[in-house]
Amino acid sequence: MRQPPGTFTISHASGAARRGVLHTAHGALDTPAFMPVGTQATVKSLGPDDIAATGAQIILGNTYHLRLRPGDELIARRGGLHTFMAWDRPILTDSGGFQVFSLSGLRKLTPDGVEFASHIDGSRHFFSPESVIAIQRNLGSDVMMVLDECPPYGADAAYTEKSLELTTAWAKRSRLAYPKDAGDQLVFGIVQGGFFPELRARSAHEICSIDFDGIAVGGLSVGESTEKMYDILTGVAPLLPQGKPHYLMGVGKPQDIVTAIGLGVDMFDCVLPTRNARNGTLFTWNGQCNIKKSENKEDDAPIDPNCPCYACTTFSRAYLRHLYMAKELLAYRLNTLHNLTFYQQLMSRARTAIEQNRYAAFAAAVLPALRREEGE
Amino acid sequence: MRQPPGTFTISHASGAARRGVLHTAHGALDTPAFMPVGTQATVKSLGPDDIAATGAQIILGNTYHLRLRPGDELIARRGGLHTFMAWDRPILTDSGGFQVFSLSGLRKLTPDGVEFASHIDGSRHFFSPESVIAIQRNLGSDVMMVLDECPPYGADAAYTEKSLELTTAWAKRSRLAYPKDAGDQLVFGIVQGGFFPELRARSAHEICSIDFDGIAVGGLSVGESTEKMYDILTGVAPLLPQGKPHYLMGVGKPQDIVTAIGLGVDMFDCVLPTRNARNGTLFTWNGQCNIKKSENKEDDAPIDPNCPCYACTTFSRAYLRHLYMAKELLAYRLNTLHNLTFYQQLMSRARTAIEQNRYAAFAAAVLPALRREEGE
Repeated sequence: MRQPPGTFTISHASGAARRGVLHTAHGALDTPAFMPVGTQATVKSLGPDDIAATGAQIILGNTYHLRLRPGDELIARRGGLHTFMAWDRPILTDSGGFQVFSLSGLRKLTPDGVEFASHIDGSRHFFSPESVIAIQRNLGSDVMMVLDECPPYGADAAYTEKSLELTTAWAKRSRLAYPKDAGDQLVFGIVQGGFFPELRARSAHEICSIDFDGIAVGGLSVGESTEKMYDILTGVAPLLPQGKPHYLMGVGKPQDIVTAIGLGVDMFDCVLPTRNARNGTLFTWNGQCNIKKSENKEDDAPIDPNCPCYACTTFSRAYLRHLYMAKELLAYRLNTLHNLTFYQQLMSRARTAIEQNRYAAFAAAVLPALRREEGE
Repeated sequence: MRQPPGTFTISHASGAARRGVLHTAHGALDTPAFMPVGTQATVKSLGPDDIAATGAQIILGNTYHLRLRPGDELIARRGGLHTFMAWDRPILTDSGGFQVFSLSGLRKLTPDGVEFASHIDGSRHFFSPESVIAIQRNLGSDVMMVLDECPPYGADAAYTEKSLELTTAWAKRSRLAYPKDAGDQLVFGIVQGGFFPELRARSAHEICSIDFDGIAVGGLSVGESTEKMYDILTGVAPLLPQGKPHYLMGVGKPQDIVTAIGLGVDMFDCVLPTRNARNGTLFTWNGQCNIKKSENKEDDAPIDPNCPCYACTTFSRAYLRHLYMAKELLAYRLNTLHNLTFYQQLMSRARTAIEQNRYAAFAAAVLPALRREEGE
């Protein structure tokens, strides 16, 4: 049933894991949800028909990239990002903050915002909390993310505390720039605080005290060990408001997603399934498959006999290896279809396990194989 | 109705243009037919579902490429090329002769065959009339082409005559290597003779006296002017047996196909629609569209409002330009879908015009726009 955008209902819980539905202006999405990354108004190598076929209900667009090319105003004149890329389901856009830090050559941070150089042509640009909201309004995404500062891995407590304060100040300005009744777009705040539990707690307190539609945990998966990520997430997850969706940004490996769902996370995004696909690394329920390996040369079996994707129902590993070795464009599409379908199947199984209140058993059953990386 | 492979029925004629059906072991194809080029067991960027959606009933595979990678014996162990690439409709494979001349660094021609170096790793290989039939038997194509020698553009009469004699000798050996009752695969001979009308006539006489299932005209579209190509084709086409399919190899531009159909050609193949697609050049009924041009930047119209392809029914020129400028993989698939759909629509309209006995009027009506190249 259609609900007002921002409505988040939790139907089941299993331990800390939650089974919910988030309503947006472009329809509802089941949580826990994985969002394929569609950086430049396309999930690399896939059309919207393909994306839907993987089972994805929501995708992520990158504000930084779309601002620079083709430009958010051009997209607004096309009717917004949904119309432009012909995807009529929910879209979340990030704030561009992370890309400014990771892709831009130059970066000048002031209390007002951040100046940066385009990775495409070196031209100078400026992001403020207000301007990234304005850009995301032009894009017309269903969920907008606030501008934050993501401290580099290894930042000390003093830097991280100052950064956290800036992120909180920007979060307040972002909400003011788009109040609750401004329209149908949702706004999520972002908890930072680096790898200092007390700073994470402070950031969670400050961000959660602002009336956002959802809360994200940022600044993880930036180079730390898996244990450190789990430690921080274990500490911060219980501090997030129960009635709002929790989004762990940029995570991650299948095993990390399974673990984070168990800690109460509802939404994920990561380039891993799409990037790995283009590198020939395919996910299966028996660990990863490197399609390049000569053992696949004459293998008539599909990547995964139980996978419903077009690649698995149509082609052998032998054919997929041939396409990959011959650098054929079709390889990228088929591998991407498979990896994203695997991720969506993982989310679907996780949701079912929560509905049946057996999430811990599900996680224990699947984690060993998921942790089995290529060559192990 | 299912007919024995090789059955070729002509239902209509309009001037010299013919409307026919060629039956193969993997079903029938309507002629005049255009065969998309699937060099490495894939039509670049498309899956077999996409190829079928363009309206193609037959594709072409390259014996030279498949022999080198992944190998015809590997493909035979997979059940043949149809099974390997999941395309269950007709496939024609060339003999590899043209690729040996155009791609291989080294080439040593003897009466027995041709020695060449792989363009992939420089390894030495040898093609004889018998071995390329054996390779195409491994591939299991519906139509096999005989090994021929394609004289370089500008070759003199003495060279061309010697080459023609070799091609005839090889054609005889090819038919002996796969007699009429050997199986369900068809064998087409190839007329050579360069740009000397009397040598073309001699080659046509010699090749047509061998009991092939179809006759191809080779050695055109090798660098000559369009007028020269039409001259040669105009002379040779009437010499081909009326009851067999006529295949003009490697041609061509839409206007050349329309003209050649009017001279009695039934089958075509060319990399132009697929290669142009990857270069951002799109075919329309109003001439070519260079998607890169800034005039497409904010154009909300499709490439062609009447085109039934996924790209035209789903996306604007503005989006397709963005994908192309951002070098997104989806650009290649969408552009290829469009160009191949355009070619198949062209063939479909040509077939209808022949059925209605108004082919000359059809050609006169479409040629001016088709000849309007980009920028004119």
